[in-house]
This record gives sequence, C-alpha cells and structure tokens, in this order.
Amino acid sequence: MTVIDFEELFEILVDFYENQMPFNKLIGMKMERLDLETAVVKIAMKDELVGNAHKDILHGGVIASALDFTGGVIAQLSVIKKMKHATPEELTRRLTRMGTIDMRVDYIRPGKGDYFTVTGELLRLGNKVAVVRSQFFNEAETLIAAGTGTYLVG
Amino acid sequence: MTVIDFEELFEILVDFYENQMPFNKLIGMKMERLDLETAVVKIAMKDELVGNAHKDILHGGVIASALDFTGGVIAQLSVIKKMKHATPEELTRRLTRMGTIDMRVDYIRPGKGDYFTVTGELLRLGNKVAVVRSQFFNEAETLIAAGTGTYLVG
Amino acid sequence: MTVIDFEELFEILVDFYENQMPFNKLIGMKMERLDLETAVVKIAMKDELVGNAHKDILHGGVIASALDFTGGVIAQLSVIKKMKHATPEELTRRLTRMGTIDMRVDYIRPGKGDYFTVTGELLRLGNKVAVVRSQFFNEAETLIAAGTGTYLVG
Amino acid sequence: MTVIDFEELFEILVDFYENQMPFNKLIGMKMERLDLETAVVKIAMKDELVGNAHKDILHGGVIASALDFTGGVIAQLSVIKKMKHATPEELTRRLTRMGTIDMRVDYIRPGKGDYFTVTGELLRLGNKVAVVRSQFFNEAETLIAAGTGTYLVG
Repeated sequence: MTVIDFEELFEILVDFYENQMPFNKLIGMKMERLDLETAVVKIAMKDELVGNAHKDILHGGVIASALDFTGGVIAQLSVIKKMKHATPEELTRRLTRMGTIDMRVDYIRPGKGDYFTVTGELLRLGNKVAVVRSQFFNEAETLIAAGTGTYLVG
Repeated sequence: MTVIDFEELFEILVDFYENQMPFNKLIGMKMERLDLETAVVKIAMKDELVGNAHKDILHGGVIASALDFTGGVIAQLSVIKKMKHATPEELTRRLTRMGTIDMRVDYIRPGKGDYFTVTGELLRLGNKVAVVRSQFFNEAETLIAAGTGTYLVG
Repeated sequence: MTVIDFEELFEILVDFYENQMPFNKLIGMKMERLDLETAVVKIAMKDELVGNAHKDILHGGVIASALDFTGGVIAQLSVIKKMKHATPEELTRRLTRMGTIDMRVDYIRPGKGDYFTVTGELLRLGNKVAVVRSQFFNEAETLIAAGTGTYLVG
Repeated sequence: MTVIDFEELFEILVDFYENQMPFNKLIGMKMERLDLETAVVKIAMKDELVGNAHKDILHGGVIASALDFTGGVIAQLSVIKKMKHATPEELTRRLTRMGTIDMRVDYIRPGKGDYFTVTGELLRLGNKVAVVRSQFFNEAETLIAAGTGTYLVG
C-alpha cells in the first residue's frame, strides 16, 4: 500500500501551482506557505499588474485572481486532510476534478503596496461543495479586498 | 463652451483601456466595440492565460478580470450618456473617481476557445452606484461565465 | 412501470410550495405558473411585508426570499425535465435533496407595488450544481431586484 | 445645541427595528444587543419560519432577511459612531437614506435550532458605501450561514 507522503505532496503541489499554471506564473503567484494547517499566497507588485498607469494600484482582476486561487487551494487542502488514507492516485483524481463554481469579491481599499499576501478559512466542506472566505492584504496588513468562493469538491 | 466630441472621446478611452491599463495589456483585452450604444470586450486565447497546463482552458482569474472590466466600461458608458452636456473636464473627473465595489462571478463552463467576447447590460444607474450584469462567451457563443458587478459612480 | 404524470406532479408541487412550506405561506408566495416550460412566482403586497412603516415598500428580506425560492423552483424544474423517465420515487428522492448553496441579491429600486412577479432562467445545470438568474418585478414591470443563486442538485 | 444622547438613541432605534418594521415583527427579529460597540440580532424558532414542514429547519429566506438586516444595523452603527457630533436631525436624515445595495448569502448548514443569533463586522466604511460580513448561528454556536452585504450610507 502506498501511503501519502505529505511533505512530498506539498512540494509537488507548490511546483504545480507556481509553474504548471501559466496564468499564476504570469502574475507571479507564489506559495508563501502550504502545509496541513493552512495556505498563504504571496504576490509582489510589478508594473504589469497595475490597473491604471496614472495611479500605482493593482488591477482588480489581479486581486480577484488571487482570492479565487487562494480559496481553491484552501478547498483542496481541506479535501487532502479528509483523504489522509487515500492512495496518491485517488487523491490526484479528486483534486483534478475540483474547480470554482462562483465567487464574490469585495474591493475595500486601493491595491497599494510592494507585496501582498492572501489568506483564507474554510466555512463549509460538504461532499460536493466547499465554501472559503479569503482576505487580500498588503505588507502593512491593510485589508485590500475580501472574497467568498464556492468550490466543487465532489 | 467646449462640447464633448464623442467620436474623439471613445478613441481616447479605447487607447486608455488598451494601452494605459498595464494589466489589460498583459491579458490582451481589446475593445471590440465602444460607442454610445454599448461596449464589447474581446480576448484572444494565448498560452499565458491558461489555468492548468494539462488542460487547455482559461484561468478563472482571466475571466473574472474581463467580467469586472467590461462591467466597469458599461458603467462608465452609462455615466457618459447622462453627462452629454458636461465639459470634458467634468466628465474626466467623474470617470476617474469610478471603481468596482464588489462583483460576483459564476463559472458556467470550462474556458475553452480561440477567442472570447464579453458583453453586459446596465441593471441600475443611481447617483452613487451602478449595477451591471455581464456575460463571457467563446467564439461558438457558448456561455462560459456570468458576472454581476456594483460600481461606484458618484 | 409507473410513469410520471406531469400534470399531477405540478399540482402536487404547487400544493407543496404554497401549503407545505410554512414561510412561503406566511409571505403569501403563490405559483402563478408552473409547467415544463417555466415557473413564475407571485406575491401580493400586504402590511406585514413592509420594511419601514413610514415608507410603503417591501422589506429586502421578502425580496431575497422570493428570489431564492423562485431560483430553487427553476432548478427543480430543470432536474424534472432531465428525469422524465424516472419513477416518481426517484424523482422525489432527488428533489428533496436539493437546496440553496449561495445567492446574490441586487436591490435595484424600492419595492413599491400592489403585487410582484418573480421569474428566472437557468444558466447552468451540472450533475451537482445548478445556477439560476432571477428577476423581481412589480405589476408595472419595473425591475425591483435581481438575483443569482447556486443550488445543489446532486 | 442638541447633543446626541446615545442611550436614548439606541432605545429609539430598538423600538424602530422591532416595532416599526412590520416584516421584522412578523419574523420576530429582536435586538439582543445594540450599543456603540456592536449589534446582535436574535430570532426564536417558530412554526411559521420553517421552510419545509417535513423537516424542521428555517426557510432560507428567514436567514437571508436576518443577515441583511443585521448587516444594515452594523452599517448604521458605523455611521452613528462617525456622526457623534451631529444633531439628531442630521443623524436621522442620514440613517433614513441608507439601504442595501447588494448581498451574498452562503448557506452552510441546515437551520436547525431553538433560537438563532446574528452578528457581523464592518469591512469598509466609505463616504458612500459600507460593507459588512455577517454570521448566523444557532444556540449551539453552529454556523448556519454567512453573509456579505454592501450598504448605501451616502
């Protein structure tokens, strides 16, 4: 029987999230943390992410992308925790079937900063659907935006 | 008295949307149409916009970015139509103060296609807030995603 | 083999929606139409549904309740249409497992009127989840509010 | 100069919320707490609030109504705190112009319980718009539903 090696699994996932998801790479989404406890995403400000060249603030789409992605990772994490005794194949099959159903984003303050961190917490994990609330902060820990996403986990 | 020349205004806006908004440029958002009637946004598929390298579908963040942006343009258009007798300065001041308050995105089908068009319609235009419903289609006119956004217009 | 008698089924459902759902009864939600094509819900204004006694407008909660309920009926209808060859027992089992996952409501105009009708259209019907957009009108066909709901159908 | 007597103001508001808002009265929404710190709403289970007579759970519309109302009260509270030096007339004028722009509700678990409490926290207070996240619990402190609402405060 093959058991899941979590350290290895998280290494594979970090590589997948950062390098096998082209749009994540384009934006520069990095996993600041990924373990059985939680996931934190980090983005560094760069010129291409700016919404309006006259103001130096993030495009709302970057913020929405990061809230959606972080919520999805936290939903995947909650599935991984429930499948501790699954084989790697079963887990992979489950993870690749997941996806975002819908999402709400609230833009609270202008996206000013040098880098940004995105966190979230699971509100619900059912057999078919997970719900995650997420937050987007700058390096001064100012709340820039908040999200709620519903994810297919079945 | 300077009156607004709409043809000129829309040329300036198209240039602004496509060239002065760096993240729009990164994604490749183009104005397929922008006149007093409506706005249509177009995006061509390219490798960097893919979510998962193993499947060839758009990242949800690209879709959210396009729905948010298109809704914002339609909100701006509705303000422009109401300010037909304003000076260009008054109009510019008003447009630059606008921004997204919140947004919902529903992901309906996988983002497969060669190019995508995004349309929308105004649900509400108040003194402070506009609400726009939007749709994201591929070239086969398959509905990929739908959005509802609330925009500050005051 | 028992086949589904749709005329009978819709009679049973109308009775269920109007009489076996106590909160629907309290509000006075009536099925103006329910057939294989679509569903329309109707509510008559009455004093107890008012939000603010000094203005004569519906409480937002009445509007949200009606948009959620109408969306749910349309999701159920889409399941019924797909299960035309099921037995009544299979259909009943499926319908009773359905429920709202999440919903967005946009309040467009004050809820003024003598009676209100609520309609909707299916955006997505998957194996697990349905998405419905809905509209709340008064008798002058003024759009009072719009909704989008995600429903469990699995 | 008339200064605001907060104790008196909160008494007037509690009376208004519980007795001058007919639909609140119909549902039985009570202010468990209302002071400069926060607001908590309480609802007792009763037969008329049930969604499905065969199961003994709250109708989703009751939950949506309570999340919307609680968010609105917390938005009002945040305005009251900012207007400490206003006259009662200025404050009244401001409060009566407020209203819900849009709301998201996530239904997490079935609404089972004897009574329910609803709390929330302000995410944003701008000149025109406030955003509030809210939670709906039963007496066992089980999270039944979560909401995010955008309110006009201008």
